[in-house]
Amino acid sequence: MNFKLQNITIIGLGLLGGSMALALKKITKAKIYGIDNNKIHIEKGLVLGIIDAEITFSELKKMDLVVLAVPVDIIPDLSIKVLNTISSNTLVFDVGSTKHSICKAIEKHPKRGNFVAVHPIAGTEFSGPEAAFDSLFEKKKNIVCDREKTNEKMLENALEIFEKIGMQTDYMESASHDKHIAYVSHLSHISSFMLGKTVMDLEQNEQNIFNMAGSGFESTVRLAKSSPSTWTPIFMENKSSILVALEEYIRNLHDFKTLLEEDNNKAVFRTMKEINRIRKFSVH
Amino acid sequence: MNFKLQNITIIGLGLLGGSMALALKKITKAKIYGIDNNKIHIEKGLVLGIIDAEITFSELKKMDLVVLAVPVDIIPDLSIKVLNTISSNTLVFDVGSTKHSICKAIEKHPKRGNFVAVHPIAGTEFSGPEAAFDSLFEKKKNIVCDREKTNEKMLENALEIFEKIGMQTDYMESASHDKHIAYVSHLSHISSFMLGKTVMDLEQNEQNIFNMAGSGFESTVRLAKSSPSTWTPIFMENKSSILVALEEYIRNLHDFKTLLEEDNNKAVFRTMKEINRIRKFSVH
Repeated sequence: MNFKLQNITIIGLGLLGGSMALALKKITKAKIYGIDNNKIHIEKGLVLGIIDAEITFSELKKMDLVVLAVPVDIIPDLSIKVLNTISSNTLVFDVGSTKHSICKAIEKHPKRGNFVAVHPIAGTEFSGPEAAFDSLFEKKKNIVCDREKTNEKMLENALEIFEKIGMQTDYMESASHDKHIAYVSHLSHISSFMLGKTVMDLEQNEQNIFNMAGSGFESTVRLAKSSPSTWTPIFMENKSSILVALEEYIRNLHDFKTLLEEDNNKAVFRTMKEINRIRKFSVH
Repeated sequence: MNFKLQNITIIGLGLLGGSMALALKKITKAKIYGIDNNKIHIEKGLVLGIIDAEITFSELKKMDLVVLAVPVDIIPDLSIKVLNTISSNTLVFDVGSTKHSICKAIEKHPKRGNFVAVHPIAGTEFSGPEAAFDSLFEKKKNIVCDREKTNEKMLENALEIFEKIGMQTDYMESASHDKHIAYVSHLSHISSFMLGKTVMDLEQNEQNIFNMAGSGFESTVRLAKSSPSTWTPIFMENKSSILVALEEYIRNLHDFKTLLEEDNNKAVFRTMKEINRIRKFSVH
């Protein structure tokens, strides 16, 4: 690394925090410490080799890097507490799925320059330290918000980390990020959860319905396996944008339902044909 | 094979018909003929080695097996035409996603016993002969409807084929099949198409929204790449069941939206936690 990176603390040892620890282990020889309110996560983190040791909050001032990987409703207050504690040389970034409330919370903090507001577009439907793996971030997109608020040297160091763990970074304004991510991530999760619910409500009387399901159903319902502990705070934090996206989604479903009711084959065909433009899209 | 299977005709050389031809080539030495209104499909079928030759309708009486792999709105009339033409020894099955209208159409046909109403739960978001591959049916579920209407020996022969190409067969009553498949397949397609539409409507002004999308979005939107030529007839054929499923889906989305609006964190969490039961489900 082109900067000193010997002591790292990860706060929150779930899928994201745990994977970040493992990814950092591959690119540095830094000692990696962990903080987590859940003692089982600390124990698993030690057993699985995710962290080298537990650490207390007061020792954060010795860190070169602190990563915040806790639920998004906790990040704003935690960020202030961390910025109050660190040294002037400590780099801090979070990995939350919403960015505006955190950027707003620390806007005027004297150490705002030490903080990078980050959203790695990476995850799986699994959660907890045992779901962590060192290649989670490889070839993934990464969004840094409100970059101008971060000290230039700090940002440069953070970008070196992101690049070395395999991510490609773009920049956005935090409010704009939250509005757009409601469509391409948060809405997908809600559509998947509700699809799961609709099918399972039927299944209560029809035990064998899953025997009829194929890979199409499995891929649309995959995100319904996601952790409520992670996603409840995300939905609440980004409520206003999600409600707009959800309303449009419901309207589109309703309009399509009307086309079916009216036996409007041509419009049903044309609607799907236009949506097929999405074929050009692939994350790989 | 435990029965004579030397001459096979596939009607409709798309993803399903083409893959069935290729799968049959692996398990038999039969000559495989093709019929398709689209001359390009016949040409591609010959070039890609999916079929050995084109054939005319009047020659179907020489066949040991005829497979119907055309859009579901065409199958009922085509089935009658095929049953009128074949010999008493010809086995016929279709591979459509809806089963009730076809079973009803041929219910009283004197050669009903030669027909097996089949829904292989297999497919991809791609279509046409070039999308066909010989392992499409391997380890997939297969549903035979109204089995008691098929002659016992004919059914036995069909089951031998299904088993040899790698499918595991279950049985259902055709109306019940259509009702249930509306939930686990047809609704998934509509939810995915409308998710794609909702995001693309926004994208018209926001070219870079796809840069924010991760694998979660890609998996929920995969089915929106499916062929409108295949899916318009399926939605129309199974309209009544799909409308019920779609109504329940919209109601669930609406209820979830209300929970968000009311800041009811606990109910949002609990709802997702209950849906997590779907983790037990996997098609593999």
